[in-house]
Amino acid sequence: MARIDAERFLRDLHELRRIGAYKTGVHRPTYSPQDMEARRWLMDRLAECGLEPSMDGIGNVYGRHKGAGPHLLVGSHIESQNHAGWLDGALGVVAGVALARAGLPVDVCAFADEEGHFEGGFLGSRSIIGELSEEEIDRSRSRNDGTPLREALAAAGLAGRPRMQLEAGRHKGFLEMHIEQGTQLDKAGLRLGVVTGIVAIWQWRIVFEGQQDHAGGTTMAERKDAGLSAVRLLAAIDREFPRVCGERSTWTTGRITLDPGGPSIIPGRAEVLFQFRDVSVPVLERMEETLRALVRESNRRERCAATLAQISRATPALCDEAMQAALAAAAEQHAPGLWQRMPSGAGHDAQYIARRMPAAMLFVPSIGGISHHWAEDTREEDLVLGCQVLADGAERYLRG
Amino acid sequence: MARIDAERFLRDLHELRRIGAYKTGVHRPTYSPQDMEARRWLMDRLAECGLEPSMDGIGNVYGRHKGAGPHLLVGSHIESQNHAGWLDGALGVVAGVALARAGLPVDVCAFADEEGHFEGGFLGSRSIIGELSEEEIDRSRSRNDGTPLREALAAAGLAGRPRMQLEAGRHKGFLEMHIEQGTQLDKAGLRLGVVTGIVAIWQWRIVFEGQQDHAGGTTMAERKDAGLSAVRLLAAIDREFPRVCGERSTWTTGRITLDPGGPSIIPGRAEVLFQFRDVSVPVLERMEETLRALVRESNRRERCAATLAQISRATPALCDEAMQAALAAAAEQHAPGLWQRMPSGAGHDAQYIARRMPAAMLFVPSIGGISHHWAEDTREEDLVLGCQVLADGAERYLRG
Repeated sequence: MARIDAERFLRDLHELRRIGAYKTGVHRPTYSPQDMEARRWLMDRLAECGLEPSMDGIGNVYGRHKGAGPHLLVGSHIESQNHAGWLDGALGVVAGVALARAGLPVDVCAFADEEGHFEGGFLGSRSIIGELSEEEIDRSRSRNDGTPLREALAAAGLAGRPRMQLEAGRHKGFLEMHIEQGTQLDKAGLRLGVVTGIVAIWQWRIVFEGQQDHAGGTTMAERKDAGLSAVRLLAAIDREFPRVCGERSTWTTGRITLDPGGPSIIPGRAEVLFQFRDVSVPVLERMEETLRALVRESNRRERCAATLAQISRATPALCDEAMQAALAAAAEQHAPGLWQRMPSGAGHDAQYIARRMPAAMLFVPSIGGISHHWAEDTREEDLVLGCQVLADGAERYLRG
Repeated sequence: MARIDAERFLRDLHELRRIGAYKTGVHRPTYSPQDMEARRWLMDRLAECGLEPSMDGIGNVYGRHKGAGPHLLVGSHIESQNHAGWLDGALGVVAGVALARAGLPVDVCAFADEEGHFEGGFLGSRSIIGELSEEEIDRSRSRNDGTPLREALAAAGLAGRPRMQLEAGRHKGFLEMHIEQGTQLDKAGLRLGVVTGIVAIWQWRIVFEGQQDHAGGTTMAERKDAGLSAVRLLAAIDREFPRVCGERSTWTTGRITLDPGGPSIIPGRAEVLFQFRDVSVPVLERMEETLRALVRESNRRERCAATLAQISRATPALCDEAMQAALAAAAEQHAPGLWQRMPSGAGHDAQYIARRMPAAMLFVPSIGGISHHWAEDTREEDLVLGCQVLADGAERYLRG
């Protein structure tokens, strides 16, 4: 069995944590100087363990195994959310390095901008499977400050470099280790999660057009209060979605903006950012149907016109059964009874790589379920256990 | 009967409109150079029509009638909301000048900051009745840019000036002419409104404390979604308030803020700005009781704690019956059948002056009900009719 070097694995993680350190977390937005420093640091690690390192035109850092196959691809992302945790993404990349150090035939990749600092998001994993067009790169801008993606690439020294594509037939599968970003494992006292699939997120913008008026001079009967129409639709969603959702569906209103937002002004316009997630397309479609019916009903009843626009519509990614079985067997060996199968509620690079090859993911617990925050953390014994199970699972799958 | 000089009245209004002109409206925030220019312009007009002009330490511009009483006080405010209409406030001040020009025994006053550019609002009318303390002036800051009120007063050259108080027993009553800031008159094809009372606004801040989490990793059963608790409370208000409100009550949610407001983050905190208005204290108290009961119910049912804080609690002001009768008789004479009695849904200086003397208000229509916007307008024949009815009503009341 391939044994990972636990001490070296943790040392790598802590070294990477120092780049862009922010409190106990990190701040490494995509293509920032800190992010580029992390990518160069990774290239040195890849070279160290005998892989052939390169960085392509979208910022993907790739370490190619020089020996014979069959190969696995292992990785995740290395940039962070703003002022966020040290493990989100970094863990899966450094675990890849650990597997390479243990002598496994793996290529390691850090995919650029999984976190979506730029419009579109998942730039690296979409680019490497050939689903990111030059036109989209031309259009995309930073969600933080509006900088065009082209400008950011040029500033990072990546302009004009070719973008790497996956070599067809080279990999038997893709493995991504990641923190759970939820409380399931932590609350249940479990140490590992074998991921069954990655939910798709369907995002919506719902706009209500009413009439801005003085809150004193306009009677209730005359008003076209866009905020009130929004509240009524959201209350209807709260009532109806439980009837059509799946067992693990989630739906979230992240933002409500009333325009102009003064205490004494009837909102003339309201905008709602709404999303739902599930691993099952029929369930997603049922939720969409319900949302569309509720918006139609709103337009029949309310004085303010509601418009529904879909911002994004992803496809759920199911994890490969044989890879899940290999990870499950490894988990049961190293932590008997302390693991479970579970869907991933968050999006991951694996969902795009799964379009080209079998893919699987392994979760370790997030303490208190915290993520996308600098306080994010995981116990070191769980990190080490996860990495060893990943290595063991990789070996079992390559043998199988 | 006192005849107003319609041409001169309109010329004054249009002259004042040029100061701080913005599109077809004006931008004269309190104590801005434009506002101070308007106040000096007014002092010249007051002197012109034989009144003794002065400006006090809060910016109130006062024109004192030199002859014998009994006197009336006539006025409104002269600053505007940001980028707002040319008539809101200005009309009542220039109408006062017109009454003075017509020889009526009136003092004319432009009260500072009715519009509440500074915290507290109604600085001038509260100051002149002795209900604005030095401590409040020390504390108050601009709602636009945070400038301390003391600094703004000094920059306007008003630091150290005494603040004028109403002379007890001098006035038989106060008259304020104003645009309606609503659609009642315009929609009904009426030309005048005799105001029965000014509603009180009770304003509230409702804060919900939940738990900020990743929208993918956190199941519906685990969430503490502060935004959802807010939506449920607002839906309950929408359901329950019609059962306890008065005939002309209004209630408005002007702002909903979900924190942090990202599309994929469960809001950990939600803040709602909510207000209701009525002329009747028992009705206001019934609405408050209902709001408090709904917040208690929210705290029993929801996972997020709701906290209710009252931001302001005014007293409704009822207009004097004899003054209303005088205005009504004048309205019926000049525009038979084309006027109505109505409450004012918006706040006005008259609500404070009414604490010291009988007070009444006369409304003219706002075209399309527009106000607090530069497009605000009123037909000139309605302006002239209103001013003549105000003069006639003043004379009838002085005689009565």
